[in-house]
Amino acid sequence: MGRTVYLNGEYVPEEEAKVSVFDRGFLFADAVYEVTSVHGGRLLDFDGHMTRLKRSLGALEIPFEVDTEAMLEIHREMVRVNAIDEGVVYLQISRGAADRSFMYPGEDVSPTIVLFTQTSEALKPKNPEKGISVVTAEDLRWGRRDIKTVQLLYPSMAKMEAAKSGADDAWLVEEGLITEGTSNNAFIVTRDGTIVTRELSNDILHGITRAAVLRFASETQLRFEERTFTPKEAREASEAFITSASNYVMPVVSIDGVQIGNGKPGPVALRLREIYIAESSKWAV
Amino acid sequence: MGRTVYLNGEYVPEEEAKVSVFDRGFLFADAVYEVTSVHGGRLLDFDGHMTRLKRSLGALEIPFEVDTEAMLEIHREMVRVNAIDEGVVYLQISRGAADRSFMYPGEDVSPTIVLFTQTSEALKPKNPEKGISVVTAEDLRWGRRDIKTVQLLYPSMAKMEAAKSGADDAWLVEEGLITEGTSNNAFIVTRDGTIVTRELSNDILHGITRAAVLRFASETQLRFEERTFTPKEAREASEAFITSASNYVMPVVSIDGVQIGNGKPGPVALRLREIYIAESSKWAV
Repeated sequence: MGRTVYLNGEYVPEEEAKVSVFDRGFLFADAVYEVTSVHGGRLLDFDGHMTRLKRSLGALEIPFEVDTEAMLEIHREMVRVNAIDEGVVYLQISRGAADRSFMYPGEDVSPTIVLFTQTSEALKPKNPEKGISVVTAEDLRWGRRDIKTVQLLYPSMAKMEAAKSGADDAWLVEEGLITEGTSNNAFIVTRDGTIVTRELSNDILHGITRAAVLRFASETQLRFEERTFTPKEAREASEAFITSASNYVMPVVSIDGVQIGNGKPGPVALRLREIYIAESSKWAV
Repeated sequence: MGRTVYLNGEYVPEEEAKVSVFDRGFLFADAVYEVTSVHGGRLLDFDGHMTRLKRSLGALEIPFEVDTEAMLEIHREMVRVNAIDEGVVYLQISRGAADRSFMYPGEDVSPTIVLFTQTSEALKPKNPEKGISVVTAEDLRWGRRDIKTVQLLYPSMAKMEAAKSGADDAWLVEEGLITEGTSNNAFIVTRDGTIVTRELSNDILHGITRAAVLRFASETQLRFEERTFTPKEAREASEAFITSASNYVMPVVSIDGVQIGNGKPGPVALRLREIYIAESSKWAV
């Protein structure tokens, strides 16, 4: 494939980018990550991703000091050497390699830091003019989804199940309420035009794109509420959409086989997508 | 450290045992594992571990055919080359390395198989004549604990929290009921002498040592019940203990700072430990 990967201070061919089998990212899912979008060769919402990264590292007490300026240089270098115009930079930091123990290793063990890129071509994003279909699935993830860890097996399983049923993605449901998508935040627009997305808590990821979209909604005088909602309310909404770093704002046109609104991407979702790309591009670095 | 690690068909020095940063075990916790005890240079409950391994692989649809005879040869070779008399053989199989996607990769991607050993000296098991102390903690793990995956971050966090409070381990509690320990099954002995452990479900690991202990209890006419129990019932029990491959049967002498029974390892736990080691040794391979 020919990409260059960043691994613990070095830029190496992807075939050579390897970590110890004793790395706690491999043995314990003891690692956090961020995915930053690249649009027109520049990084979107970079500071937001670094702020969340620090929060995730802090929550897990992984002793890694994030130097935002140095991180930006590495991200930019990854974009440059891999010639990314549209795509993402993936960053993962694990607690490092140590003999296997449920107890964290001592200070002599350094975290492992890895960055790689993916192009939009490889990511195959859906067409926002067509939108995506989702099915609901029980949310069986762990209880701290606000920490962006690599414990992604269940989201991966749920996405595979969705694909088997012919859908593009799954929205997860806990105690009768939608939490979020497998790797994105879930939104609906009610019949009276209010944008609704679940409030922040340990139950969902604190999405960077989610926050930006709510900020832009507020600035353009769109009404929104942060609260829980049911699959039934979602199916009866006039619009639905997801937000994520790699999908920006993506309309959802059906939920569990039920057409949302007129079955086409809604105007609020498409407008927010446009605003998100335009506004975040202004501050891209 | 000088160990020899098995990696995808080769025996390599542990420093050279590395996997791709694109391995799904590293990026998605998309991997299962088994830990088999070695006692007197021989493997305990080997068939049980292989049966569970097949079940875990099947549950995740990881396309790896377990050849029990071939696996036994690899395990034995690991015991031999690493000169393990008392310790464990750790085995992990991930879905393999592929460009990052929540969708499982195609058939061209082969699972990654890793084995390494740990000696009892390195594992530092507690002294069964002293027993261990546990504290209770909220069970925040995902919903399929019956599949033995490497999503072990929360058990690791809970064990660290237990250590901070001066305890040896944590017993996890969900909806007011004890599920299990961080890496072991939880048992109590009631005042009327009944051994109690939670019934099998998706909520707990289907422990190999747990099953063996219940079988031996049955064979020696000890009364037992598989049912849920509360932290209060546990604190008021006459005995408590845990079972796991690396701990065998280990008495618990305090829960949340409350002494269990007379605060010393109980006779039922010590007797079961003795029977477990003697009986499983007979069938060791």
